[in-house]
Amino acid sequence: MTEPLIPDMVADHTSCLLIKLGQVMFRVSEDRLATLGLRTRHFMILKVLAGDQASSQLELGTRLRIDSTTMVAAIDHLESAGLAARIRDHRDRRRFLVEITELGMRTVEQADELVRTLNDDLLHGLDPAERANLHQALLSLNSGATLPRAYDAVRR
Amino acid sequence: MTEPLIPDMVADHTSCLLIKLGQVMFRVSEDRLATLGLRTRHFMILKVLAGDQASSQLELGTRLRIDSTTMVAAIDHLESAGLAARIRDHRDRRRFLVEITELGMRTVEQADELVRTLNDDLLHGLDPAERANLHQALLSLNSGATLPRAYDAVRR
Repeated sequence: MTEPLIPDMVADHTSCLLIKLGQVMFRVSEDRLATLGLRTRHFMILKVLAGDQASSQLELGTRLRIDSTTMVAAIDHLESAGLAARIRDHRDRRRFLVEITELGMRTVEQADELVRTLNDDLLHGLDPAERANLHQALLSLNSGATLPRAYDAVRR
Repeated sequence: MTEPLIPDMVADHTSCLLIKLGQVMFRVSEDRLATLGLRTRHFMILKVLAGDQASSQLELGTRLRIDSTTMVAAIDHLESAGLAARIRDHRDRRRFLVEITELGMRTVEQADELVRTLNDDLLHGLDPAERANLHQALLSLNSGATLPRAYDAVRR
């Protein structure tokens, strides 16, 4: 029998479960996305770029809550891999926007598929109703005001 | 209105939600536990020590899935703060066990209360049924075989 990820007395706390399960998802996600030369944050940035118009680095960082130094390095990586490009904002020539390339579009589709498989692999112990409930509860937390505010407060 | 933690196109993936919510919980947990001079991992170790008999460093690391270098530093911290002590194993005098002190017991009770409040603060956007469903789904993942195995495989 496999031991639980964290022992019962720690798993009493929902926050402790979220912290450890988040770490597991992150490590597995990093491992799998590496096959496409991506890290998890690169994938998230490409997903936003694929869904939106070109955005400034600052807007991307704000929306994904990624610190600006990390964001610069991530965009550098995506640019050197030919997945995104910095272009001049035609409304304000002093400003740069980040735009996804065609290769970036193809790559994000592959990555999306890979992450979908990762979800199926790691969540297959839950029945469909449990899985839907889990996703719904996490979505509520994601879009409610509490967590974003608490996070922004400690990041400052 | 507060923006969601991560944009909808990323939040489609349960894994991405878990990764980001886990990060948020971690940062807030680190921030609050610091008032007791603890980090999240110190709290988890003390919880296990408070519930069990004395354990070896290796056993603790295995049960909490904490790497051995991190574990040594964590036990050093707990020992210098007077919250845990390294004692000789009377069954094998060459071996050391880690044991919680009385101060450690009092501190873990305070920390437990603090983490309970943190959960209430951060999860209050969920109604009681949603919160129970969330905890139940996370518990299933914690004690199912899939995630522990996937994590142990990438940690190696």
